[in-house]
Order: sequence, then structure tokens, then C-alpha cells
Amino acid sequence: MSQLKLEFKTLLKSHAELVEKTLIELLDEACLDYEIERPARLMQAMRHSSLDGGKRLRPFLVMESAKLFDVKPDQSVLAACALECIHCYSLVHDDLPAMDDDDLRRGKPTTHKAYDEATAILAGDALLTLAFDILSREATHTSATTRIELVKLFAQNSGLGGMVGGQMLDLEAEKKTSISKEDILTLQAMKTGALIRCACHAGAVLGNASKEEQQTLFDFGDIIGQAFQLVDDILDVTSDAQTMGKKTSKDADKGKGTLVSLYGLEASQARAEELLEMAIETLVPFGKKADILIEAARFTIERKN
Amino acid sequence: MSQLKLEFKTLLKSHAELVEKTLIELLDEACLDYEIERPARLMQAMRHSSLDGGKRLRPFLVMESAKLFDVKPDQSVLAACALECIHCYSLVHDDLPAMDDDDLRRGKPTTHKAYDEATAILAGDALLTLAFDILSREATHTSATTRIELVKLFAQNSGLGGMVGGQMLDLEAEKKTSISKEDILTLQAMKTGALIRCACHAGAVLGNASKEEQQTLFDFGDIIGQAFQLVDDILDVTSDAQTMGKKTSKDADKGKGTLVSLYGLEASQARAEELLEMAIETLVPFGKKADILIEAARFTIERKN
Repeated sequence: MSQLKLEFKTLLKSHAELVEKTLIELLDEACLDYEIERPARLMQAMRHSSLDGGKRLRPFLVMESAKLFDVKPDQSVLAACALECIHCYSLVHDDLPAMDDDDLRRGKPTTHKAYDEATAILAGDALLTLAFDILSREATHTSATTRIELVKLFAQNSGLGGMVGGQMLDLEAEKKTSISKEDILTLQAMKTGALIRCACHAGAVLGNASKEEQQTLFDFGDIIGQAFQLVDDILDVTSDAQTMGKKTSKDADKGKGTLVSLYGLEASQARAEELLEMAIETLVPFGKKADILIEAARFTIERKN
Repeated sequence: MSQLKLEFKTLLKSHAELVEKTLIELLDEACLDYEIERPARLMQAMRHSSLDGGKRLRPFLVMESAKLFDVKPDQSVLAACALECIHCYSLVHDDLPAMDDDDLRRGKPTTHKAYDEATAILAGDALLTLAFDILSREATHTSATTRIELVKLFAQNSGLGGMVGGQMLDLEAEKKTSISKEDILTLQAMKTGALIRCACHAGAVLGNASKEEQQTLFDFGDIIGQAFQLVDDILDVTSDAQTMGKKTSKDADKGKGTLVSLYGLEASQARAEELLEMAIETLVPFGKKADILIEAARFTIERKN
């Protein structure tokens, strides 16, 4: 393994640990201001939905993008956790019986399986709301202007015009007999791409980056967002549930159109490599400072789960 | 009808019209930044969930509380609409089969009945997210500090420690054979009270009110929030579905403990009157300027639906 890859793996792990520790604290504090009884079952379901899970790729991208602009991980971790709360809420709602109806997530029962549907809906709602609570805090960034810019960025990328809209288009696509490449790209850019783009863009906002630099991080996030979803579709075909910690062959089973089903495995893998080259190209202006983000792009595309 | 009552009724109507008009614009604009296909079905479900509905009491309280501090309704209407989006999302999710399982809301089919469960879950998610999008905009308030304060206020009152937590406690209470007065008060203060309190408090924040004045509006909102829920429980017993635009006798049918079932109708009506007196007392420092808010409190308690 190259020195850089080793450094990336170490950072991915240590950032994930910082995110985990911070999420635990945030969830513990979340009710303290009110001096009322905490809804214990809801808190447990929020913990089940957000802790001990995943690679924490989105928070990693927030923290490493912010680092390009000399913001240390302990200064960007709260915004990173807010984004992770939004990601986790979306998984809880997407897994519901009325949506993708999944029993397994990150190798554990999904929230509605471990609790019940009502609790899962509310845990998702509370995690989404907590994200904006976190963004509003002075500890997230000293400047109110930066904090409100993050609120706008997160809200626009996760709502009707972003992630939620993408999930809606995805549900509708499942009912169609065929779907065009453009429609697949649009729904993926919204459903998965928006939050990944948002992660990189948020790092630049946290670092008071110029509009031009923000655009560069937006572009980088956009490209690896595309790559991430493409690789997800490839793994859905080539991997198994044990490796993925969730059900595979879901798309094929549903007869759902993906880029892989349209273009085949080989062309899709070639496209993923092409996206990696584009992502690397985007970060040239940052020189060696961007080495870890480039490793993250490489990891996104070469991952096995 | 007294002159004041007439003035209140006229204002309630005109504020509701301003809220309706503004919500229509906000929903139309919500996707424009992205230059992508709008998820049409989701937008329709969001309109179904938020337009042409209710008395718009919460937005009214935002706008009239702000007016105490010389903020005109057209300057407070965006924050008011953000709060209404949160209220409407909560109704959509609470009506779901996994929660209260209601078919009728504001005299129309509930969102999951008019569309389907998946669309209703996503429409709720998108309305909640839109609320924070609205709060992040400069048009909502020129000061970023005020906007981020509103984000914090709305998030804390609608999440785990507020509305969502209250709904969770409410679902759990339905499974219990008995519930104490304290537990009922806590869950009502969270489930219904938090947003009403938030409405009055938000008006003070929009008006750059002093901490003391903010506390006064918080207290006023707290009292009418209690009164609102108490009257809701009374009407659940005394009114019918036609008048209410939603199912009645729900609590009794479920054997659910409310203050009315604990203390009886007469004592509950007396308590509502007492709360009205307390609410009026709270606003004494504002003199005649608070006349309309006092009418709103009277309306909340004397309403028939």
C-alpha cells in the first residue's frame, strides 16, 4: 500500500471516530435545554440510526475539504456531523416498508425493524431537525453569516430540489418500463450526488473560500457523487449482502434501470475510471494539499463495499 | 360582535391570505436554483399538504407578535410561512397509517390517501427542509444573526426536545393504561405547545426584542399553547367531524388519557378560562398594542373547531 493510501486509511478511521464521539455527545445534549422528560425510545432509535455506522464518507469530505482552507477537523466536525445526521435520516426513511422496504442496513436491522415504523419515521424527522439545530450553534462556526450559508446549502441539497426530490424520482422510475440515461443521471445527481457535493462545498464555506474555490469544490463533489452512485450500481451487481452490509441485486430484482443495466459492467467501470481522472484534474489548483481528497476519490471508486 | 373581535377576524383572514399567497410562491420557486426536472408528484403532494388549509393560527401569532415590535406582516410573513411548513409536515407524518392513521384532514383526504405513503413521507420531509431553506434567506430577515437565531428556535422546538419528541410520548401514552396529569402536560407542551410558543417567541426575535420581552412572548405562547391543546381535547369530545374537518372522539375511542378524561368537561372548561386570564395578564406590559394578540388568545379558547 502506498504511503498516501495508508495516510488516507488512517485519516478515514480517525475522522470516523471523531464523528462517532461527537454524534454521541450531540445526541446526549439534544434534550437538555428543555428540562423535560426525554422520549427515551426515540433517543434510542436515533442512536440506532446514526451511531456505529458506515464509512462516514460525507463527514470525511466536509473535514478534508475544509482542511484545504486551513480549518482543522475539530473545527469542522460539527458541520460534518450535521450532514451525517441528514444522511442517516434519509437512510431510515428510505428503508421504510412504504419506500425501499429494507430489513438490513450496515449489517444491522433497519430502524423500523429494530423498533417500529412510527418510531423510525419520527427518528428520521428528529435527526433531520437536529442537523439544523447543530448548524445554528456558535460552536459550529463563529460567524453567523457562515452558519446561515451552511443552513441554506444543506437545506437546498437535501430537500425538494436535492435528495428528497431524487428519492421521489427514483420511486417513480421503478414503476416505469424504461428510463433514459439523462433521467438516471438527473435522479442520481439529486438522490445521492447532492449530499456528496454539499459535503465538499460545505468544507469550502467553512473555510471562507472564494466563490471560485467554492465552485471548484462543488465540481469535485459533483464528479465523485456521480462516481459514488455508479460504483454503488456496479457493486449491486457484483457484490453480496455480507460484504455490503445490505441487500444486493436490488435493482436487477426490481427490473430497475441503472447506468450499469443500460451500458453494461465494462463500460460502467471504464466510466468510473474516467470520472476519477476528472476529479483529480479538478483539484490541480490546490497542488499537494489535495492529495488526501484525491485518495478519497480513488477510494470512492475502487471500494469493494 | 365587538369592534376588536371584528378587527381580529379581518386580520386572521387577511394574514391567512398573505400566508397562502406566499406559500404558493415559495413552493413554485423551491426548485428553480437547480435547473433540473422537478419531481412533479412530490410538488403536488407538498401543495396538497400545505395550501388551502387551516386557520393559519401559528403564522398569525408570528406576525402579530412581531407587530408588537413594529415589524410589518410583509416583513414577518416568510418566517411565518417557514413555521407553517413545519406544522404542515407534522400533520402529514402524524396522519400516516403507522402513526395516527387518519383519512381526513382539514376536510380533505390526508396526503397518504390522496397520493400514497411513500409520497406523503417525502412530502413531509421536503416541507420540513423547505422551512429551513426559507429561514436561511436574506428576505426573511436582513440580519444573519437573527436568521440563525430563528433556525435554532425552530429546530429546538420542532425536534427531539419539542414537537417530534411529544408525538413519540403521545404514541407511547396510547399504549399505557393510565397516564398522570404531569405526563399529559409534558407531552402536550412538547407535541402542540412547542410550535405555538415558538410562533410567539419568533415574532419577538424578528423584532429584535429584549431578552425580557422575548421571555414575555415565550410565556404568552406557552399559556395559549396549553389552552389550545385543552380546547382541542374538549372539542374532540363535544364536536363532530363535519365541524372539525377531521375525525373526532379519537381519544375516547382509543381509551387515551387527556386532561378532559381525567378532570371532566366542566373542570377543563374552567381551566381554559383561567388560562385565558393568565394569557391576558402576561401581555399587560404592552398595553393596547397587544389587543389583537389577546383577541387571538380569546379565539383560541372560544373556537368551535
